[in-house]
Amino acid sequence: MDYTIRAANVEDCKDIARMIMELAEHDKLSDYVKITQKDLEQDGFSKNPFFHGIIAEVPEKHKTKDGHTKIGYALYFYSYTSWKGRAVFMENLYVMPEFRGKGIGKALMSKVAQLGLAAGCTQLDFIALEQNKLSQEFYFRQGCSDISADFGYHYMACEGEALEHLAQP
Amino acid sequence: MDYTIRAANVEDCKDIARMIMELAEHDKLSDYVKITQKDLEQDGFSKNPFFHGIIAEVPEKHKTKDGHTKIGYALYFYSYTSWKGRAVFMENLYVMPEFRGKGIGKALMSKVAQLGLAAGCTQLDFIALEQNKLSQEFYFRQGCSDISADFGYHYMACEGEALEHLAQP
Repeated sequence: MDYTIRAANVEDCKDIARMIMELAEHDKLSDYVKITQKDLEQDGFSKNPFFHGIIAEVPEKHKTKDGHTKIGYALYFYSYTSWKGRAVFMENLYVMPEFRGKGIGKALMSKVAQLGLAAGCTQLDFIALEQNKLSQEFYFRQGCSDISADFGYHYMACEGEALEHLAQP
Repeated sequence: MDYTIRAANVEDCKDIARMIMELAEHDKLSDYVKITQKDLEQDGFSKNPFFHGIIAEVPEKHKTKDGHTKIGYALYFYSYTSWKGRAVFMENLYVMPEFRGKGIGKALMSKVAQLGLAAGCTQLDFIALEQNKLSQEFYFRQGCSDISADFGYHYMACEGEALEHLAQP
């Protein structure tokens, strides 16, 4: 099947917001999604964006029954590790279910890897959910390693009142 | 004890590189450190920096026996989550052993939290090592939660030949 992979622009935010929700629903975590199309427009497409996006798109003739032609996406941002320096973090990778098994997910991830290497990054990082065994197998086939397991990493977060309190001098 | 917390500048990179190595030695992971002072200078203090830093400094009269007055640091960068949007990631938090127990680590983390909130972030993320029980207790006292445990997160990485291979179209 024909598809194109291209940089996301502000007009894609409606579809990115839709697919973020689809991904969260797939993971049964949709109650955690607070982000809106407007947040994505402001945060990704103003000066000093907080993230970048890429879109997988199919021709009109392959559109979904709901009329969608934007059928996959990845979000990423540049990060840093004190051991090895420049890194790229892939925050999301998603392809709509009916378009899976065609290499589109791998093509999206490959694009993030290309962009990362071009920016001098030596590492592509991301989170895999324990429950998504198929995703993990996909990532291992690409030669990725599970740093949490190798080094005993715990991913921690401070938010809400705890964050406000922490910020008090 | 008097100390100041301030934004890092390019002249701090020598001390940041020294303390990155001290932190890795403390964690018995120094073999993994490939970063140099020059990397830090280029990546943190040119246009579009990959990270930001803050420094804890003591007056000359409290300098270490090796003459150091820069005795702690944190590195951070802005990141993004598809659930909640703007986030700040604290890559390192370190205070030299003889200066611990004086609130300097908390002051550094508090500054990262302040800067994150000012930039519209709703979340401060970081990695805690399984083996550092004292650090984890410190973080839990600040109200942080262990997202790896709560959601089954696996922190994954693709690097070296695997990354080069993935980037092939």
